[in-house]
Amino acid sequence: MKKIHIIGLGLLGGSFALATKKAKPEMEITGFDSDEQNIAIALEMGLIAKSLSVPDKDTDLVILATPVDTLFDLLVKTLDQIGEHTLVMDFGSTKDQLCRQITEHPKRAQYLAVHPIAGTENSGPKAAKEDLFDGNVMIICEMEKTDVHLKGMAYDIFDALNLRLRFMDPKDHDLHLAFVSHLSHATSFVLGKTVIDKTADERNILDMAGSGFASTVRLAKSSPEMWGPIFIENKTNVLEALNSYIDHLAVFRDKIEAGDIQGLKDEMLEANKIRNILNFTE
Amino acid sequence: MKKIHIIGLGLLGGSFALATKKAKPEMEITGFDSDEQNIAIALEMGLIAKSLSVPDKDTDLVILATPVDTLFDLLVKTLDQIGEHTLVMDFGSTKDQLCRQITEHPKRAQYLAVHPIAGTENSGPKAAKEDLFDGNVMIICEMEKTDVHLKGMAYDIFDALNLRLRFMDPKDHDLHLAFVSHLSHATSFVLGKTVIDKTADERNILDMAGSGFASTVRLAKSSPEMWGPIFIENKTNVLEALNSYIDHLAVFRDKIEAGDIQGLKDEMLEANKIRNILNFTE
Repeated sequence: MKKIHIIGLGLLGGSFALATKKAKPEMEITGFDSDEQNIAIALEMGLIAKSLSVPDKDTDLVILATPVDTLFDLLVKTLDQIGEHTLVMDFGSTKDQLCRQITEHPKRAQYLAVHPIAGTENSGPKAAKEDLFDGNVMIICEMEKTDVHLKGMAYDIFDALNLRLRFMDPKDHDLHLAFVSHLSHATSFVLGKTVIDKTADERNILDMAGSGFASTVRLAKSSPEMWGPIFIENKTNVLEALNSYIDHLAVFRDKIEAGDIQGLKDEMLEANKIRNILNFTE
Repeated sequence: MKKIHIIGLGLLGGSFALATKKAKPEMEITGFDSDEQNIAIALEMGLIAKSLSVPDKDTDLVILATPVDTLFDLLVKTLDQIGEHTLVMDFGSTKDQLCRQITEHPKRAQYLAVHPIAGTENSGPKAAKEDLFDGNVMIICEMEKTDVHLKGMAYDIFDALNLRLRFMDPKDHDLHLAFVSHLSHATSFVLGKTVIDKTADERNILDMAGSGFASTVRLAKSSPEMWGPIFIENKTNVLEALNSYIDHLAVFRDKIEAGDIQGLKDEMLEANKIRNILNFTE
């Protein structure tokens, strides 16, 4: 394995380039982005060695790291361009629709549907971090539909990047992600909007917002270009998650309104269990 | 100034003790907690030199760092116990009701209403951190009602702890805090509860939850004993904030349902402004 081509030189694509360069310095990394400025930055930062609008025929691996609403067309176009020993994979946060759309494609075996559970609220090539993937989960969907040899090549590089592999049905993936990722992005965007709409005097927000607010609203800084398509494409699951959240909020609000302090404490004690489930660092 | 007495040896009281010990090693710090185990831990950790159920008459400063529903009775009791050169202040996250309740008290001038904008999702004396207050804001309400000399003593110690003083009307304080603190705690508790209720298989949450979810749900680990009384006492403002948030969520949900990607992106672009307002660190 010698050549990787990355389409979409933002946070994920750029971080994959940095991590791969570190783990496998011999790899030749090329890339492309629809934004010429991103290409220039990626070249300057050394994320890619050169920019190519079409990957070389002997490229081993093509990564698609663009917004989810661009992925189907890009995947079909890329499968048409590549040689027979090339694997294509996308990093999209939704997997079900794309897997269904591509299922009958003659080169389906040259595609691997993956989703790295990694990110920050920042976007663009400058946001790339060499350790973004380190120790995190890579979800792989419909692994049985991908050629064994090509898949093995992908697993090698995932291992080199210290990713932990998890295998999952695309429908399950999209439902679970709606609750543990897409929902928290929506709640954070809306929290930011609510507070901005209320508090015209920005100085007051600045002064009184503690680290708790900063943590809760952090994802409100995320890219609308990335998240708009995710919410729309995963609409059914995101709506289920959002409606459930709104129902839970109404219960909480009603308990406050009723002055039901014991009921409130019971709700919060249940929520406290997140402490045992997520063993995350501070 | 030689003696400080701290009632409530949890995160805030304990952190104040640690920071004061560092900034003013000559200070004698005594304390009390309704939980005997907290007293034992505070003594063992050296947060306090000894435990006293009633502060010495020559104590310079008494801090009340207990849940907000206990503060009025505790403040009245403490004002009755202290000498005439002692200042009492509370660290409660709501200020309006307490300021109104205490306004006619004959020793009103010996009370200073403050609220340190500092905290973590952890509670109890073991959660105390020496640098919890460092560089953060201390909000002071109705400063004109406190004796000038006693107030000066408080400002000296706030300066020593590197707190930045802000002066504010208690009603304004409670309204703004509802939006920039109490709301984000409510949204985080409810997010935790929603995800726990949905995802019975904890392993799935653990695997697929990225750092974004962890950040957004962090406050769901907060103490119900502390937060129940805050939500109830600041009910009017918290309900305004929660209802506004639910309205904003419904708008966001409706745009997803309608497939209105441009409308969604506009909402998120507005929310992105939080990046300019809050210059917080990652």
